[in-house]
Amino acid sequence: MYDQVTLSLNVDPYILSALKEDISSEDVSTNSVMPHPQAGEVDLICKQDGIICGLQVFERTFTLLDPNTQVTFYAADGDAVTAGQLIAKVHGDIRILLCGERTALNYLQRMSGIATYTHSVASLLSGTKTKLLDTRKTSPNNRIFEKYSVRIGGGNNHRYNLSDGVLLKDNHIGAAGGVKEAVSMAKAYAPFVRKIEVEVENFDMVKEAVEAGADIIMLDNMSHEEMKKSIDFIDGRAEVEVSGNVTKENIAKLTDLGVDYISSGALTHSAPIMDLSLKNLHAV
Amino acid sequence: MYDQVTLSLNVDPYILSALKEDISSEDVSTNSVMPHPQAGEVDLICKQDGIICGLQVFERTFTLLDPNTQVTFYAADGDAVTAGQLIAKVHGDIRILLCGERTALNYLQRMSGIATYTHSVASLLSGTKTKLLDTRKTSPNNRIFEKYSVRIGGGNNHRYNLSDGVLLKDNHIGAAGGVKEAVSMAKAYAPFVRKIEVEVENFDMVKEAVEAGADIIMLDNMSHEEMKKSIDFIDGRAEVEVSGNVTKENIAKLTDLGVDYISSGALTHSAPIMDLSLKNLHAV
Amino acid sequence: MYDQVTLSLNVDPYILSALKEDISSEDVSTNSVMPHPQAGEVDLICKQDGIICGLQVFERTFTLLDPNTQVTFYAADGDAVTAGQLIAKVHGDIRILLCGERTALNYLQRMSGIATYTHSVASLLSGTKTKLLDTRKTSPNNRIFEKYSVRIGGGNNHRYNLSDGVLLKDNHIGAAGGVKEAVSMAKAYAPFVRKIEVEVENFDMVKEAVEAGADIIMLDNMSHEEMKKSIDFIDGRAEVEVSGNVTKENIAKLTDLGVDYISSGALTHSAPIMDLSLKNLHAV
Amino acid sequence: MYDQVTLSLNVDPYILSALKEDISSEDVSTNSVMPHPQAGEVDLICKQDGIICGLQVFERTFTLLDPNTQVTFYAADGDAVTAGQLIAKVHGDIRILLCGERTALNYLQRMSGIATYTHSVASLLSGTKTKLLDTRKTSPNNRIFEKYSVRIGGGNNHRYNLSDGVLLKDNHIGAAGGVKEAVSMAKAYAPFVRKIEVEVENFDMVKEAVEAGADIIMLDNMSHEEMKKSIDFIDGRAEVEVSGNVTKENIAKLTDLGVDYISSGALTHSAPIMDLSLKNLHAV
Amino acid sequence: MYDQVTLSLNVDPYILSALKEDISSEDVSTNSVMPHPQAGEVDLICKQDGIICGLQVFERTFTLLDPNTQVTFYAADGDAVTAGQLIAKVHGDIRILLCGERTALNYLQRMSGIATYTHSVASLLSGTKTKLLDTRKTSPNNRIFEKYSVRIGGGNNHRYNLSDGVLLKDNHIGAAGGVKEAVSMAKAYAPFVRKIEVEVENFDMVKEAVEAGADIIMLDNMSHEEMKKSIDFIDGRAEVEVSGNVTKENIAKLTDLGVDYISSGALTHSAPIMDLSLKNLHAV
Amino acid sequence: MYDQVTLSLNVDPYILSALKEDISSEDVSTNSVMPHPQAGEVDLICKQDGIICGLQVFERTFTLLDPNTQVTFYAADGDAVTAGQLIAKVHGDIRILLCGERTALNYLQRMSGIATYTHSVASLLSGTKTKLLDTRKTSPNNRIFEKYSVRIGGGNNHRYNLSDGVLLKDNHIGAAGGVKEAVSMAKAYAPFVRKIEVEVENFDMVKEAVEAGADIIMLDNMSHEEMKKSIDFIDGRAEVEVSGNVTKENIAKLTDLGVDYISSGALTHSAPIMDLSLKNLHAV
Repeated sequence: MYDQVTLSLNVDPYILSALKEDISSEDVSTNSVMPHPQAGEVDLICKQDGIICGLQVFERTFTLLDPNTQVTFYAADGDAVTAGQLIAKVHGDIRILLCGERTALNYLQRMSGIATYTHSVASLLSGTKTKLLDTRKTSPNNRIFEKYSVRIGGGNNHRYNLSDGVLLKDNHIGAAGGVKEAVSMAKAYAPFVRKIEVEVENFDMVKEAVEAGADIIMLDNMSHEEMKKSIDFIDGRAEVEVSGNVTKENIAKLTDLGVDYISSGALTHSAPIMDLSLKNLHAV
Repeated sequence: MYDQVTLSLNVDPYILSALKEDISSEDVSTNSVMPHPQAGEVDLICKQDGIICGLQVFERTFTLLDPNTQVTFYAADGDAVTAGQLIAKVHGDIRILLCGERTALNYLQRMSGIATYTHSVASLLSGTKTKLLDTRKTSPNNRIFEKYSVRIGGGNNHRYNLSDGVLLKDNHIGAAGGVKEAVSMAKAYAPFVRKIEVEVENFDMVKEAVEAGADIIMLDNMSHEEMKKSIDFIDGRAEVEVSGNVTKENIAKLTDLGVDYISSGALTHSAPIMDLSLKNLHAV
Repeated sequence: MYDQVTLSLNVDPYILSALKEDISSEDVSTNSVMPHPQAGEVDLICKQDGIICGLQVFERTFTLLDPNTQVTFYAADGDAVTAGQLIAKVHGDIRILLCGERTALNYLQRMSGIATYTHSVASLLSGTKTKLLDTRKTSPNNRIFEKYSVRIGGGNNHRYNLSDGVLLKDNHIGAAGGVKEAVSMAKAYAPFVRKIEVEVENFDMVKEAVEAGADIIMLDNMSHEEMKKSIDFIDGRAEVEVSGNVTKENIAKLTDLGVDYISSGALTHSAPIMDLSLKNLHAV
Repeated sequence: MYDQVTLSLNVDPYILSALKEDISSEDVSTNSVMPHPQAGEVDLICKQDGIICGLQVFERTFTLLDPNTQVTFYAADGDAVTAGQLIAKVHGDIRILLCGERTALNYLQRMSGIATYTHSVASLLSGTKTKLLDTRKTSPNNRIFEKYSVRIGGGNNHRYNLSDGVLLKDNHIGAAGGVKEAVSMAKAYAPFVRKIEVEVENFDMVKEAVEAGADIIMLDNMSHEEMKKSIDFIDGRAEVEVSGNVTKENIAKLTDLGVDYISSGALTHSAPIMDLSLKNLHAV
Repeated sequence: MYDQVTLSLNVDPYILSALKEDISSEDVSTNSVMPHPQAGEVDLICKQDGIICGLQVFERTFTLLDPNTQVTFYAADGDAVTAGQLIAKVHGDIRILLCGERTALNYLQRMSGIATYTHSVASLLSGTKTKLLDTRKTSPNNRIFEKYSVRIGGGNNHRYNLSDGVLLKDNHIGAAGGVKEAVSMAKAYAPFVRKIEVEVENFDMVKEAVEAGADIIMLDNMSHEEMKKSIDFIDGRAEVEVSGNVTKENIAKLTDLGVDYISSGALTHSAPIMDLSLKNLHAV
Repeated sequence: MYDQVTLSLNVDPYILSALKEDISSEDVSTNSVMPHPQAGEVDLICKQDGIICGLQVFERTFTLLDPNTQVTFYAADGDAVTAGQLIAKVHGDIRILLCGERTALNYLQRMSGIATYTHSVASLLSGTKTKLLDTRKTSPNNRIFEKYSVRIGGGNNHRYNLSDGVLLKDNHIGAAGGVKEAVSMAKAYAPFVRKIEVEVENFDMVKEAVEAGADIIMLDNMSHEEMKKSIDFIDGRAEVEVSGNVTKENIAKLTDLGVDYISSGALTHSAPIMDLSLKNLHAV
């Protein structure tokens, strides 16, 4: 769960914006037929197996519309759930339940999809020292939800954005005049609590990076053999991240490398949604 | 393309919000090594076959960061593109190119993915009178991008949100006391330029809906046989939409129904992204 | 009343903006003399006969300033009220009552004025099939209040804005190359739940519009005779709206036409305000 | 005209908000038939005699949509114009002209209406020392436009809002324990550049106010005789404002009082709009 | 204390913005180790002697994060406090206490610093008729806090900003063509509740200002002798303000002038902060 | 200088907010006497010796008001300037120069003050390996300006805010159950590019922190002797930061410690402003 501070300062504004996207003046259909409040209840049912994630966001969507809405949960973020399972009951004004349904489900389906996919990939790393990382390949204006889902699914977060992590790529290195110069400039400029990560594409760059004192070295799209050689050379002098079109299908061949981190954009940009729906709405 | 008005009033705020999500104070890596502007150029390359979509948003991401950035396009939204194809060249301050890269691609990959998937589904309806519709199952705060992508892919848009279309579902009908009452209340309440759509689940409701004067009748998760019977009964007195877990895999069996519309949430919630990247950044 | 969702998402922001317009730092007069809270009560008195409208907005202005403010109502939106009638009592910190008074009354007076004027015009259509419509000629940033007031006064709403209704005027028709082409293009482009309305200025255009399958035909500033001829020709194949400087003074001559709708910008742009005031503020 | 600073900081946000009110996603009608820009021109024609006001806001509505729009003016704010007169030509993309038309006219009609009405009332004070003042009875979120229109019409502005002027009414006086105490507390609390105005309802209060050193005394709803007596007593020791349901119809009987100011809420809350329209749109 | 209206409309937005400045996604340190709420308490201790100011803002910082946080105060704004004194106890979720600590103290330290410094300067004027004024030399986006602190410290407020007070400086006078013209134009243009202040630099300008009917005359950087001569000349016909690099060190030499006001930018731009800290955080 | 992206996304909003704080409707004084634009020029003069900082913000304040304003600089951020020196000439509409003056100077004076003070402190560390760090003790809503000023003055930045750096204090350690547990939990939770810093208060905690693998150890308010012992023990296994009421007056006694970093809140919360002014405004 998000803590109260993150929720109110940094999550709520996105949920409110999404609600306004769906309700630019009013819910015309509902208001046509229900001029008055009417207490009701509806069931949140899972229609696929997977890892549920985003229940707090699901609930918040309704309570932002009406703080009197109450949600009773029968599962928690990170739980493995199965098709047909009752996940929650939402109790409140039926008009609120109808207005918030689509936005609440749009968040929950996407977040659960990411947690489920991440979990399935992270499982392939189980028993190794390698941690699974996400990237910045998130849906625009959904990063705080998607990074959270990765953690719930058993992954770890790479930097949140361009402002809170240093990752020196070929263009940065070129502009600085070399790996050594780039690392040195970054250490001088960036807040000193940052680790300095360098993205390298071949063994020569690995050597330079180690010598420059990089904290983390990212091996980007390198051959398996070259990665092995690099890791041997680094020998613990820097943390090692492997990157490059990593998916559930191809991660197996990386597990024997013994690297610290494998990052995968697919966790956030290609996870299929989990199907969930609200069923059995009735007055109470 | 979005017209200038839609772009500035309703698209730009989302792009700016996405940029701030990625750059909460500054791009620390770039600023470490490039204290001064440096003109450069980078190629936008397609890495998969598909329908390209979102080039204006891609461009806008950079020009919102710096109006001096210039993009030359070698393809236009809706074009079929192939892996390896040069789509555009972006020319500007290298620091701008690095800062905007991820956000621009996050939009473009998702939008092109939706256009590509929609196109492949719409193709299956080619030669019939049936039009393909999207739904409100979009990524939060991305609807204006995803609905546009559906159109570029050859689909049509259902209502934009809860405020601009009337769709009476079972709960609305229950609250009103029957199909007839619900339609009548909606005609009295909603702005008179709205069509009234009723979602039905069986043949009896179809009859009621026709008699109540519904403009559109949505057959939701009905059997093939019951749909046929319903369409015969309606006989042009209302438009007919078919809905219910429609995907590329199962749409074929619906094409012989001769309905006006088939709607599919999968267009927006399950389209895989199209892989694109920026390559060959160099100073000029 | 607005439902809770519309109120919090789409009405509150305008009220808050209006309050900030009136209180850019603090209420200097009140704060000079009342450094501490002091419970009090004030009466809302009607000073003219009419239809009261906007009581929820009146209340909300005070509760947005201080949720502890309480309003007891002796009338409801849509009630006919008379000069001197007690409409409500507002109970709370006197400082809140003084700070919110002007903004609350500015809304209530305008909304009640529109409801009153609309009611008087709609009464002239009583007994006919013709419904009275508003237009987009509303005060900037007050549309959600003014469209609501029209409904309370017995009118109906035309489209809310440019995004949620299709109305093809001469320039659209010219750009499309004819009525038929314009209707066809609109059906292809606009969300399919929209009715297509065409504005016509003479009988020839009426014929074209009917043949093009327009859902609604607006007769704009046509002579009485030509309107009659047009309505006979349309003969139920489309709904008919009559428009053009319609006011309370001249609507009578349109009632015999038997059209579906008459629209009048005057409902919102020329309704006189209803005079109301807060009286008898006293400590309790 | 507004200066550039006021325009960009404090006027533009309201105009943009009004545009978003009217265009929540896009102009569907226009975009259906005009997928591409098309240069055009349209005439702004006055349909009633009056004082034109708001031309800069009219222009700004279009240039905020597209900075390339150009407006040529044949009249200036404050000019007396006559029915049929060409006021301006707007040149730009026809799609922009169609999108901005309603919002631009909604502002211009209201502002010109206020300027016209104010002018007609102010004329009745011509030849006297008495100045005409507005009040805070403005349309919510339109004060900056309406106060400006009063000035253009020949009136003067009372305080802008609760924060920038001190006006001590009966409740303030009661809370302070008397006129003298209230004035003294206001002088101690309010920024020292404020004049202190006291609202009085009878001659006794007038005496107290003068003795307390009030800068301005507002005679509220007093009899003609009592006003005369009060003004004689004040004898220049404070400025004098007369208030209370002042309209064009009843102001004449106040002119002989020789007061400094007469304030009228009707200037902003009851001025009829001036009819204006865009005519003769054509491609160029 | 701020009244409820000022607090919610005009103070809260700044505090929320400051909180977002410090918490752009989440408090990573706290969330790492405290996944769940934990009730706790912490003491606010003063580490220097001075005038405490900003306790409501201190409290609000925490209650905006979590309305369940409770603060018990042992001192009030304006109290003289001493090093080591317990000022307040904050009770709530320890995670909230940690998240809000820095922002709450940043406000409290600056506000108390200004109140303390103002108090020490105002004391030097004690026994004279001269009041101490602040200026617009405040920290950007902190004016509402700093002007309040000046009042708590025993000073008075000059105009709040450029919109709510008229101060005609040499450039305004030059543009108008003379003091007389400038005053006359200001009286015609500005809301009539404004006093007109003129800044003068020599005796000749003083004479012009008096004759022009200026309400206040500011003697800016004039010699002591010339100020004396000016004050004699003015002789009560206008209020007199003295300005120009006034600090605690040099104000003494101005006190014998018997002017109405002395203004000092140093009150807000150069007051040292008061040191305060949160101590003894413990679970309860 | 800020790069273009940081400026437009993250700096401009604060400057605009500050301008609106100072101009809530209009500059009444200027608009009274200057109804029309008038080209002019003014000199920015330094009135004290120091390090100039914030020239881009100074310029931006004017160009945000009017993009046609032009500033010619005779010094650059970081330059040592002397009293009386011409720093820049601002050319534009005199009304813009008057409107922006105060806000531009409020920023420039504060930023230059911080740069000057930081420079004087950093100079005391010259010749040592120790770097000078700022803290989060910044003025609310001014952090992006103040952190920049520290860099210009020769200091380095600590973490920007709570979201982008991990600093485990006693309460975090207590909640986790020990230093080791806290570090381990932070490594598991925080984005992996973060260094883990631990604040310690005695030698025992130093040992624990080293053993737990902390990247940085902050010695907080420890005796000189204990710091020496700690640094010897750490022996390069972690970076070392010293903290605790460090000012220009007392930093000397820390320089011989040979630590990596000394942090000082005084850099931002106690730097005196640098006096600057705009002089010699004249029409051109």
